[in-house]
Amino acid sequence: MSFESEIRRDPVCGRWAVVAPERSLRPMTLEGAEPRHRRNGERHPCPFCPGQEYDTPNEVLAHRTPGSQPDGPGWQLRVVPNKFPALRPDVGGDSCAIEGMVLLTTPGFGHAEVVIECPEHLTAPTALTHDQFAAIFRAYRDRLQALSEDPRVAYAAVFKNVGAEAGASLGHTHSQIISLPIVPESIEAELDGSRAFFARTGRCVFCDLAVRELAAGDRVIARSEHFIAVMAYAPRYAYEFWVLPLTHASRYENITNTDTLELAALMNRVLVALDRVRAEPAYNWFLHTAPLRSLELPHYHWHIEVLPRTARPAGLEWGYGCFITAVAPEQAAAELREALPG
Amino acid sequence: MSFESEIRRDPVCGRWAVVAPERSLRPMTLEGAEPRHRRNGERHPCPFCPGQEYDTPNEVLAHRTPGSQPDGPGWQLRVVPNKFPALRPDVGGDSCAIEGMVLLTTPGFGHAEVVIECPEHLTAPTALTHDQFAAIFRAYRDRLQALSEDPRVAYAAVFKNVGAEAGASLGHTHSQIISLPIVPESIEAELDGSRAFFARTGRCVFCDLAVRELAAGDRVIARSEHFIAVMAYAPRYAYEFWVLPLTHASRYENITNTDTLELAALMNRVLVALDRVRAEPAYNWFLHTAPLRSLELPHYHWHIEVLPRTARPAGLEWGYGCFITAVAPEQAAAELREALPG
Repeated sequence: MSFESEIRRDPVCGRWAVVAPERSLRPMTLEGAEPRHRRNGERHPCPFCPGQEYDTPNEVLAHRTPGSQPDGPGWQLRVVPNKFPALRPDVGGDSCAIEGMVLLTTPGFGHAEVVIECPEHLTAPTALTHDQFAAIFRAYRDRLQALSEDPRVAYAAVFKNVGAEAGASLGHTHSQIISLPIVPESIEAELDGSRAFFARTGRCVFCDLAVRELAAGDRVIARSEHFIAVMAYAPRYAYEFWVLPLTHASRYENITNTDTLELAALMNRVLVALDRVRAEPAYNWFLHTAPLRSLELPHYHWHIEVLPRTARPAGLEWGYGCFITAVAPEQAAAELREALPG
Repeated sequence: MSFESEIRRDPVCGRWAVVAPERSLRPMTLEGAEPRHRRNGERHPCPFCPGQEYDTPNEVLAHRTPGSQPDGPGWQLRVVPNKFPALRPDVGGDSCAIEGMVLLTTPGFGHAEVVIECPEHLTAPTALTHDQFAAIFRAYRDRLQALSEDPRVAYAAVFKNVGAEAGASLGHTHSQIISLPIVPESIEAELDGSRAFFARTGRCVFCDLAVRELAAGDRVIARSEHFIAVMAYAPRYAYEFWVLPLTHASRYENITNTDTLELAALMNRVLVALDRVRAEPAYNWFLHTAPLRSLELPHYHWHIEVLPRTARPAGLEWGYGCFITAVAPEQAAAELREALPG
């Protein structure tokens, strides 16, 4: 039995899964995850705080005060490799091993990075300043651009876990970027669905959705000049919402600095409203963008999905992919609009 | 805004979701779910215990002592409509309403049933007698046969939530059957994947998998004459395993009484091992079978998937459908084999 990480394909439905025995070394358990509001000093020094830079691998990107040294203090944002990676860039082989007919596996290649979003030990993303919040979205873009230079990378997942219930193992606000040699299942499903819609109508389904939702209004939470925040029409969790650009764009890597500021402002407003309405729930957000190095796709449209943990999925959800929510998106939108900061 | 239940289709990836505001009346919250080991008497009378039959809707199936009255004591197993259904059989309209181009919804039609598996207030399925355990699998079959007589039903999801972490709101051991006017996403994905494999090879991918796994051996937990229990090759959670018949069969409705006994015995043995190895984890099991009233399909193969809650999924899992597990299936199989009851 090998203890190296593997990426395996389900023989029936094609879902990819990472088998990463090394991850069991990570100092986190279901019970032991840091709660959202634990403060610095209640535990061993937070490895994401200034002065603890020796506790993370060397930074791959940092926003720094001029004159400060890499991997020392003096930073506003750092991107570092994950100390307990599920995937590693140094594993050999880009070929897939096929065991007979049905079982497909590939070495656990990938980059696992952590975006440490601020030097202060803040646990709520909404506590960041406007500039700090916008810097997250610039860092996403810059790392996607850098990772796309590695031809072995097919996709980079960019996501954020807020709160232990949403899978965060450390409270200090951070995001993760995991590059993969495959395109993951959810993105394939969106690419397939949007391609079919385009073939049928000649239009992008996300562009259509944005126009329709703006016209209807009852699921819209907020909009800015170039972005809209709208409830998911068929949500997995109550209060699930999406943020998408109003102008067609499939590749997040092309976002301008100005647009990252506007995106950050809109995201932050809606998250403040969510914290107010649901008493600071745990949530994930994730960026869905086209596969790296793809051309601009006419049918696909990058967006961010925000998934609050407002229920506990059971057999119908896990077994059949069919989700039940007890709060209608139209009701949730009305509550969030009401709670938006001025 | 309507407060009736709706089944909505995601405009991009096609996933169906149930929006059921009535469900918010259900006396369960994320915090308030009954823990797996709470005993009767610690709470208001358990609505699934004998003497409380008035607290559930009228039974649609029961295994009863001769001479006992419906909806009174004297039963060994009862199937009753869910008191807090997400879907209801009496909602009108089998037609789908299409709002313009992209948003698809259908009324919240369906049957939501609960299988109360024993009169005793047991919370661990493995505490059931052999006959009680086998009766569950007969009840599944009999309800699938009955539900397939309703032409409005396309699929019936049959699943079990064990423990609050897995979504159970009551401890008294029970299963759920939810019939749907659509085929849910996970089943569509399996049908698509297995159809593609069959087109390529002329063989059923599940039959192939069973033969391959029996030959390799390192992911097999146990087998009986007609069934195999094997770890998922690309698991979502560590210790995920599947139980499937060794002889090709796409429709669970056709299982014989003898085979339900054998299936129950194998399931029970492996669940005892799981309880030993993982200290009685929360888990779901779900039955994947062909859509109701389908002909026998050469490419599809019914099976049961068991998903223990051994980790907390985060952004990579929820956002991309890519799961990370820290225990290799081969390691998990070895542990479970070691822990099987004699």
